Amino acid sequence: MSLEFQELDRDPQSLARTGEMKLAGIKVQTPMFMPVGTQAAVKTLDSYDLEDMGYELILANTYHLYLRPGEVIRSFGGVKRFMDWKGALLTDSGGFQVFSLAAMRKFVTGGVEFQSHIDGSKHLFTPERVLDIQGMLGSDIMMVLDDCPPGDADSTRLEDSLDRTHRWARQSVEYYRQGQEQGRFQNQNLFGIAQGGIDEKLRSESLSMIQALPFAGVAIGGLSVGESREDFYRVLHHLGPELDEKRPRYLMGVGTIPDFLEAIRCGVDLFDCVLPTRNARHGIAYTRQGKLNLRNAIHTESQEPLDTECQCRACRRFSRGYVRHLLRAGEITALRLLSIHNLQFFFDFFVMARQSIQKGQFMSFYEGWKKIGF
Amino acid sequence: MSLEFQELDRDPQSLARTGEMKLAGIKVQTPMFMPVGTQAAVKTLDSYDLEDMGYELILANTYHLYLRPGEVIRSFGGVKRFMDWKGALLTDSGGFQVFSLAAMRKFVTGGVEFQSHIDGSKHLFTPERVLDIQGMLGSDIMMVLDDCPPGDADSTRLEDSLDRTHRWARQSVEYYRQGQEQGRFQNQNLFGIAQGGIDEKLRSESLSMIQALPFAGVAIGGLSVGESREDFYRVLHHLGPELDEKRPRYLMGVGTIPDFLEAIRCGVDLFDCVLPTRNARHGIAYTRQGKLNLRNAIHTESQEPLDTECQCRACRRFSRGYVRHLLRAGEITALRLLSIHNLQFFFDFFVMARQSIQKGQFMSFYEGWKKIGF
Repeated sequence: MSLEFQELDRDPQSLARTGEMKLAGIKVQTPMFMPVGTQAAVKTLDSYDLEDMGYELILANTYHLYLRPGEVIRSFGGVKRFMDWKGALLTDSGGFQVFSLAAMRKFVTGGVEFQSHIDGSKHLFTPERVLDIQGMLGSDIMMVLDDCPPGDADSTRLEDSLDRTHRWARQSVEYYRQGQEQGRFQNQNLFGIAQGGIDEKLRSESLSMIQALPFAGVAIGGLSVGESREDFYRVLHHLGPELDEKRPRYLMGVGTIPDFLEAIRCGVDLFDCVLPTRNARHGIAYTRQGKLNLRNAIHTESQEPLDTECQCRACRRFSRGYVRHLLRAGEITALRLLSIHNLQFFFDFFVMARQSIQKGQFMSFYEGWKKIGF
Repeated sequence: MSLEFQELDRDPQSLARTGEMKLAGIKVQTPMFMPVGTQAAVKTLDSYDLEDMGYELILANTYHLYLRPGEVIRSFGGVKRFMDWKGALLTDSGGFQVFSLAAMRKFVTGGVEFQSHIDGSKHLFTPERVLDIQGMLGSDIMMVLDDCPPGDADSTRLEDSLDRTHRWARQSVEYYRQGQEQGRFQNQNLFGIAQGGIDEKLRSESLSMIQALPFAGVAIGGLSVGESREDFYRVLHHLGPELDEKRPRYLMGVGTIPDFLEAIRCGVDLFDCVLPTRNARHGIAYTRQGKLNLRNAIHTESQEPLDTECQCRACRRFSRGYVRHLLRAGEITALRLLSIHNLQFFFDFFVMARQSIQKGQFMSFYEGWKKIGF
C-alpha cells in the first residue's frame, strides 16, 4: 500500500479528529468530502472547476465506467488521465449500483450477476473482477465488493450479507496481494467495507473482522440506506470507539450537513455523496443560514450572492436573482453555477470543521451548525 | 451617439477591412463575431467564460428578456449588471423572434401584436416600445424594429415590408432623438436595419434610405432566412460597394464559416449567430480541418484535442475521446466544453481574418478556408 495516514489533532470532547492522508503524491486533509464524478465527470463540471474549489480527492463509479466507456479507459491510461484529473481518485466497487440501478441482479456462485441498465447486456461482478476493473480504471483507492442490504433487511438477509461481505473481503485481500506480487495494482490502495445494518452486535463483529485485514482504510457501508436517522446515529455512536485509529475511516454515501456533524463527532474522516450536485440541479443552494430554493419567487429581485460569505466562482459575481432567472429560463448555466457553489460550500464546511477540531472546539461547531435547519 | 468607429486596414483585392469600434469604454476589433446570450447567458456558459475567450461584445435577445424576466432587469441596472458582463452589449429589437417564436403575431396599426410562446399573454411591439425595452435592458447598441420577410416572400409582401421597415426606422430615429433630449438612452447607440429580400433594386433602395438616417451603424437584415446561398451571396456582392465606409456594418444572424468569408469580402464588420453553441449541443466541434461530429465512433479512442491548434479551455486538457464519452453518457459537461471550444474557434477565426486583411492577404485566406468543407 502506498497510502500513508496520520492523525493530527483530536477533539477533547468527542471522537472528532483531523488527519492527513498522503497518496498519489497528494496530501488530503481530513475530515474531507469527495465530490462524485459518476461517469468520469462531476455533473456539469470539469477538472478545472474541482481544482479551483480546492478538492484533492474525488470519487468515480466503477459500475458506470465499466459499462460505458469500459475498456477504452485503459487505452487512455486510466480515469485520471481520461478526465485530466491531477488529484487523487477513489473508485467504488460497483456493487451498490448493481443493486440500485441494474435492470436485473442475482447472487450466483462467486459473485453477483446483473443486466446493464443501458442495453440489458449480462455481466458478472466478483470480488476479483471488480478489482481488475478498478485496476484498469487506475484509481488510487479501490473499494472491495460487498453486499449492502437495504435498510429494512431482516436478520436472515443481514447475516447472509455479512457472510458474503466478509468472505469477499478475504478474497479481495488475497487477490490484491497476489496481484501486487505480480506487479499489478501498483500505487493502488485497497479499502475494506464493514456492514451489519442497524444491529450493533453485527456491526461490531463486521468492523472487527474487516479491521483485522490489512486494508489501507476502513469504510462503513450500509448506513443512510433507508433506516431511520435515529438508528443511523445510534450505530455511528456505537461504532465510533471501535474504529481503528491508524487508518482513514470512510462513511459511504453520506450526505447531509447534520450527518457530517454526527459522523465527524464519531471519528469519521471521509465522505462522498451526490447530494450537493443533485440538489444544485434541482435549484437548491446551500448557505450558512440553511438551504435556499432558488425557484421561490422571493429571490426574483435579490441582488445578494447565493451565500454572502462564500467566495466561489458563482458568488463572486452572480446574484440570487440572476441564478433564479437562469433556472426558470431553463439555462444549463444555472445548474453549473449552483453545482460549483454547493461543492465549494461543502469544501468550506470541512475546512471549518477541521479548524474547529484543531482548536479543540468541535462540539461548539457541532452545536452551532445543528441549529441551522439543513 | 457615443460609439466611435474607425476603419484601420483595407484589403487591396476585396472590400474586406479591419476597424475599431469604441463603445462603453471597450474597444472592439472588427471584423468580429458576437456570441448570442439569448436569455442573458450564452447557453451553458457564464461571463467568465466569454472573457476568457477574448470576447468584448455579445448580443442578447429583447423578445426573450422582455417576456422573462422583464422589468426585473431594470432593478438590476440592466442586462450587463444582471449577468455581470463587463464588455459591450448589443440587443436586437425582438422583431425577428416575434415572427419565429411567438404563438401568434399580426401587424396592427403602429406595430406588431403577438402572443408569448411561454404563457400565451398578448403584447404589442412598436418601434418606440422596443426602444423603451432596450433602454431598460441597458444595451450599448440598440436595434430598430424592422419587418423581416421570409426568404420566399413575393414582391407584394417585400414592398410592404420595405415600407414598414423604413417608416419604423424614421420613427425610431425620431423617438431616439427625443429620448436623448430628455436624458434617456444615455450611452446607447442606435443601429438601423436595411431589408429588401433578394431583389437588388429593393436592396439598394433600402440601404440608401437607412444610410441616409443618422444611425451609429447599419445592419443588413433578411439574409440567410431561407433564400438560396447563391441569392444570398449575389445580394451581398451587390450591396458591398454601397455600404457606408464610416459606420460599422452588421450582417444579422450569420452564421457559417463560408458565409463569414463571403461577407467579410464584401466589407461586413459584425456578425452574430447561435450556430457555434447550438452545434456544440449537438456534438459538433469546429476544427481547422472542418467540422467533427463527436458522436461518431471514430473518436472513441482519440487522445487528440478537439483541434490541435486550439488553446481553449477544452483543448488544453481534454481529448476527443473524453468529450465523446461525456456526450454519449449524457453529461452536460460535454455541451459546455464544446460550446467553449466552438466560440473560441470563432473568435480565433476572426483574429486570423483580421491578420490576413492587415497583411493585404485576405483573398488567399478566403481561398484557403473556402476549400475546407464547413
